[in-house]
Amino acid sequence: MSMNAPAKREFSKIANLMRPSAIRLLLRVANQPDMISFGGGLPNPESFPLDDIRRIFDEQLAKNGKKMLQYGATEGLDSLNIALSKRLKEKEGIVSEPTNIIETTGSQEALYMVGKIFANPGEYVITEAPTYTGTISAFRGSEVKMVGVEMDHYGMNMDALRQTLKNYPNPKFIYVIPNFQNPSGITMSLERRKELLEIANENGITIVEDDPYGSLRFAGSHIPSLKSMDNDVVYLGTFSKVLSPGIRLGYVVAPRDVIDKLNITKQALDLATSTVSEYIASAYVEEGFMDKQIPKIIDLYRQKRDLMIESFENYFPKDVEFTRPNGGMFIWVTRKGANTDKMFEEAVRQKVLYVVGSAFYPDEDNHESMRLNFTYSSNEQIVEGVKRLGKLFEVTAR
Amino acid sequence: MSMNAPAKREFSKIANLMRPSAIRLLLRVANQPDMISFGGGLPNPESFPLDDIRRIFDEQLAKNGKKMLQYGATEGLDSLNIALSKRLKEKEGIVSEPTNIIETTGSQEALYMVGKIFANPGEYVITEAPTYTGTISAFRGSEVKMVGVEMDHYGMNMDALRQTLKNYPNPKFIYVIPNFQNPSGITMSLERRKELLEIANENGITIVEDDPYGSLRFAGSHIPSLKSMDNDVVYLGTFSKVLSPGIRLGYVVAPRDVIDKLNITKQALDLATSTVSEYIASAYVEEGFMDKQIPKIIDLYRQKRDLMIESFENYFPKDVEFTRPNGGMFIWVTRKGANTDKMFEEAVRQKVLYVVGSAFYPDEDNHESMRLNFTYSSNEQIVEGVKRLGKLFEVTAR
Repeated sequence: MSMNAPAKREFSKIANLMRPSAIRLLLRVANQPDMISFGGGLPNPESFPLDDIRRIFDEQLAKNGKKMLQYGATEGLDSLNIALSKRLKEKEGIVSEPTNIIETTGSQEALYMVGKIFANPGEYVITEAPTYTGTISAFRGSEVKMVGVEMDHYGMNMDALRQTLKNYPNPKFIYVIPNFQNPSGITMSLERRKELLEIANENGITIVEDDPYGSLRFAGSHIPSLKSMDNDVVYLGTFSKVLSPGIRLGYVVAPRDVIDKLNITKQALDLATSTVSEYIASAYVEEGFMDKQIPKIIDLYRQKRDLMIESFENYFPKDVEFTRPNGGMFIWVTRKGANTDKMFEEAVRQKVLYVVGSAFYPDEDNHESMRLNFTYSSNEQIVEGVKRLGKLFEVTAR
Repeated sequence: MSMNAPAKREFSKIANLMRPSAIRLLLRVANQPDMISFGGGLPNPESFPLDDIRRIFDEQLAKNGKKMLQYGATEGLDSLNIALSKRLKEKEGIVSEPTNIIETTGSQEALYMVGKIFANPGEYVITEAPTYTGTISAFRGSEVKMVGVEMDHYGMNMDALRQTLKNYPNPKFIYVIPNFQNPSGITMSLERRKELLEIANENGITIVEDDPYGSLRFAGSHIPSLKSMDNDVVYLGTFSKVLSPGIRLGYVVAPRDVIDKLNITKQALDLATSTVSEYIASAYVEEGFMDKQIPKIIDLYRQKRDLMIESFENYFPKDVEFTRPNGGMFIWVTRKGANTDKMFEEAVRQKVLYVVGSAFYPDEDNHESMRLNFTYSSNEQIVEGVKRLGKLFEVTAR
């Protein structure tokens, strides 16, 4: 019998269309010695509450071990959904029952599922431009088309959105990351949020609000989530940035008709989320560990953001522009006339990594920007990495 | 602003087509007091190595905590892929490099992904009939059509397969569960396996071999896996039955072209598998805990299988037929002329659960059978549950 691939093996159209994520490819280069990576959206390992997690795991295993290792419900662990419902009410003013929540295998699964349940292949949705690469991969995975709407310092531009709706009048939903957007770091203003909800309601369009960074605010005041102002919004949350991304635990808060479709879809995709992750997260929220940990993460990240911006001011040519995020993990750096895709190879040689701006546009036609992550690197690496990038900007022809 | 669903919300065609899994629905009823459930494919909680897991978790968290909680690679943890490659070689004669392995969020994700990468919507694949409900859900989730081929006591009937290939000459793959099949409990004979590989090779058809139960053999001798006889086979494994289903950890062993497509697809679906689960499983395999645990699980399940079959002999009408599996978790019970769908409501009232046979056929037109799980229930429950079913058979009109 042959040990070779059968000559006739063919993959599906979608398998041939999908492309590897720029960020995932980056992770491989990032492990080279002396490499400074502002690439991946990685939390700082110092932000992981190792001792709390050990205590929680041992306690939960002793108390609930047989359930913790058994198959769980597709919608997730009851106690976690109850704890999230309570927390979202207290912290975010989101009034949702535990039965309006479903756990997902990271927010990535939620992104894939919302594309799949709302849009048929070839139908379109509206996103911010730029938007998160993982969202682009997820939607592409169901052949959902994306139409990007430009942003300014207050978030998605509403005039541009109205114009887009003239050309694309029936999007299946509008996807936004209102807080400390990935990749831009921009936060949508309250006025914009209200206007977005009005436009959505006028046109009967569902809003998908992705909020992975909302609780990581370093400066400025809290702005109500879209979900808290209109309970019909489909809201995506995650433990990746406030506990651990390795446990792969996200959640969706939505009206019951949406939760039901997500539940059936998740049965086909992976049956259920890790019950081990759910028991850990449930105790993390319920027993107050999360409230204790978040201020520590904020202090760490604020200081790193400040250091990165200070380093830009010291080492970047004066015509390099950058956002000043009030939270989250990313700064968006732009230089008119630059080509960050072309610069990238030299950056790898200089041992500093960023994500090219083009990765954040479905049509990939913007090359003047890059996304820098400020949370993962050590303080020394932040200063040295920005120095290297500054030199690169100096020597790179535009 | 409206708190109601926008009038215009529509779901995608596929979201409206997908149906909830019969087994998942069952899990909700299964928690009623005094209910005896032979429904779900749940491992016995006594088979979970709680103490080993506690020791492994604490040690891994101390040694690798910062990596264990961070984002992991899409293909999975290197040390786990190395350990699996080594183990599969030693135990199964499967010669595959660690780079021929990708971890998945349970086998369910692997099932969803193989459907998606090989078949376009509307294209067909061949399965055994009956076959696993989760496979049916996964394939339906990508609108993959299934053509079932009947089984006998030696597995998929090869004459029937040849006949099916005349009517459906270009299936995207043939999907089989050769060991202790779910739901039938039947094991494919060595002769059949060789014949299946020959037919597949003659026709250039990829084989997908799903082997969740292979290491849980109670009787008879080991039969080589299809993968060990032809390395082009796509092989699916899982830790759900030999460690814990709650950790959601499966894997695929396949040629590199297939692994690459699965990797890109997984990036869109959930980015990566839980690193916590991967670190636990890696130590479980490497440090010999798994070799210590499997014989314990086998002893426990053999005894429960024997007890269930003994109870059938004591309490079932003589015309009820059943398989005698040499391993795994399920027995397939058939009574000519019965309608197990119609019987089900009365079974719930009598507080005994099974999965209706029709759930295991894509076209759902077989009603004479039921799947019984013998691993989850206590010994008392097995005897009492079979008694209740026996009475039900007695009183149910055919």
